[in-house]
Amino acid sequence: MSNLITPEWLQIPVAILDKASRKSALNRQTELTKPPGSLGRLEEIALVLASLQGSLRLDIQNVQITIFAADHGIALEGVSAFPQAVTVEMIKNFARGGAAINVLARILDAQLEIINLGTAHDIGSVENVRHYPLGPGTKNFIYDPAMTGDQLFNALNIGRQAVRRAVSANMHLFIGGEMGIGNTTSASTLSCILLNAKPELIAGLGTGLDAHGVTHKIDIIQRAINYHGEQSTAPLEALRRVGGFEIAALVGAYIHCAQLGLPVLIDGFISTVAALTAERICPDIKRWLLFSHISAEPGHGLILDELQAKPLLNLSLRLGEGSGAAIALPLLRMACALHNEMATFTEAQVSQKS
Amino acid sequence: MSNLITPEWLQIPVAILDKASRKSALNRQTELTKPPGSLGRLEEIALVLASLQGSLRLDIQNVQITIFAADHGIALEGVSAFPQAVTVEMIKNFARGGAAINVLARILDAQLEIINLGTAHDIGSVENVRHYPLGPGTKNFIYDPAMTGDQLFNALNIGRQAVRRAVSANMHLFIGGEMGIGNTTSASTLSCILLNAKPELIAGLGTGLDAHGVTHKIDIIQRAINYHGEQSTAPLEALRRVGGFEIAALVGAYIHCAQLGLPVLIDGFISTVAALTAERICPDIKRWLLFSHISAEPGHGLILDELQAKPLLNLSLRLGEGSGAAIALPLLRMACALHNEMATFTEAQVSQKS
Repeated sequence: MSNLITPEWLQIPVAILDKASRKSALNRQTELTKPPGSLGRLEEIALVLASLQGSLRLDIQNVQITIFAADHGIALEGVSAFPQAVTVEMIKNFARGGAAINVLARILDAQLEIINLGTAHDIGSVENVRHYPLGPGTKNFIYDPAMTGDQLFNALNIGRQAVRRAVSANMHLFIGGEMGIGNTTSASTLSCILLNAKPELIAGLGTGLDAHGVTHKIDIIQRAINYHGEQSTAPLEALRRVGGFEIAALVGAYIHCAQLGLPVLIDGFISTVAALTAERICPDIKRWLLFSHISAEPGHGLILDELQAKPLLNLSLRLGEGSGAAIALPLLRMACALHNEMATFTEAQVSQKS
Repeated sequence: MSNLITPEWLQIPVAILDKASRKSALNRQTELTKPPGSLGRLEEIALVLASLQGSLRLDIQNVQITIFAADHGIALEGVSAFPQAVTVEMIKNFARGGAAINVLARILDAQLEIINLGTAHDIGSVENVRHYPLGPGTKNFIYDPAMTGDQLFNALNIGRQAVRRAVSANMHLFIGGEMGIGNTTSASTLSCILLNAKPELIAGLGTGLDAHGVTHKIDIIQRAINYHGEQSTAPLEALRRVGGFEIAALVGAYIHCAQLGLPVLIDGFISTVAALTAERICPDIKRWLLFSHISAEPGHGLILDELQAKPLLNLSLRLGEGSGAAIALPLLRMACALHNEMATFTEAQVSQKS
């Protein structure tokens, strides 16, 4: 698979930013009745959104949250605090509306979609879920590449199709989430390869390992790096060898969002690794990404730094499912409302700085 | 005024926390379908709110935001980037709905009340504002105490009455905001006295001073400290000598919230100084305070540390008006919704940690 041929759609250029709208937004921010800069990061968000939405009136009302779920062969190595059956069980929980992201989507009035890309355990027939199984999870990547080339391209394309649906539904923002027992190990291994970093700098507690579990996880990641070696350095090939179906779907989704000009709010560690992978495939996409939070996972800060990303929140979140991005969403909406609705100094007859 | 007699109501004990509800909430958090602790600070918020609301079902729907506005004699020393006329102009802006806090209150569906405690410039008749003027602003505290004892007690009581209205209206949370040109200098001086700290550790850019302006402000604060000296170390007396009408109203409000058992979400630097002052008068009130953010003002971190407060946000906000607390409010509401509405492992038939 060193001759992996990139699908044509991955090479479509990303949408162009609207610099004029950003400049107009900057002018407006200085005219609003507050000391210039006093709304801090919320003013920055307004400027970025102006350049992404190409408008002086900002709008983040329609939000698509798409959760990609899949199993990971690496889970057989005992790298997670939870049994592998939880992937199927959590897909069912999403379908019935009981998970954290369901609660958040409800109170944020966001559109939620669940996509099953392949589980190790039988899922039966579950409604409210799109089933696109690519296999019974990935292969255990300390012995084999996680995916075939076909599986990789199908996963990327499933992400792309999710974004097409979001754009058709007039969404203003895309949030990708993930679920899959063992996927912090896949994401950690992938980022070790992409950053040429040692596993001990990246690997953390995941959803709840103890210190012994982390040592074991580091050992497994190192074995995977040794096994795949030099063949795995190209980003798509690294994604195929040590990624996951849901991680690849996120990569495809993020790239296509940038191509179609749909702003993205990135969630936690695994989503950020997907963003890094997407950026390595297509560097320009970064302009379309906003970063919601820095999690408790130690590698997260390193990867955010690599992307020169300044996350909005630091609340020790480590759940995934898109939940961290959902939790940051009100900040974007408040930044828009303040930008759109505050009175100017002239309108309010308030004196400016002396 | 060294014989300042504390009003009786300031000595009413604070409401008791419900430890049993906190324990039940902790049990519930471990039963929800997520790895224990994976919602980070949002889980902590749920536990705190359970102990404050004495209920397993948390509710932060009804929110009172009360803005206290007043002028400061110290503004005559040129310690603000804005002319003193802005206090009156901003009260009018609040009244007409054009300020940041108006926009935030609207989109958060919070109740907003504006209270004028006395301005240097004539305000005329402005509707949608409660006018309780205690004088044409405070006196310039490098020459005189800022307030008389009567003014101080009236200001404290105006804060207290605002809280009584909030409780009568079945509010679940109180946010106090402030507006007053020069009030970062008053708050900085007050915190220097209460913490016995040097002005250069506390004083910052306020709403937009340059480096020269900050040096001048530090000089003014030092002159005030020298002038008031040892007489000013008791917290109520310090508040009288170098505080402001709106700062005293916040102190009265915070203390009465704790007495009546109404949780408070503290805003930025000036509100945190008011919280510190309130805590020095009545240490137990701290239990009823949540802290929304750490601002760009250098002294803020020091005062938060003194209060052992862990603010939720760090977004370089420095506007005041209660805006930072309003911006953090969705985090509290999401913490409540997740706590109330997520499915348990048993309900969702999801396996727990192995």
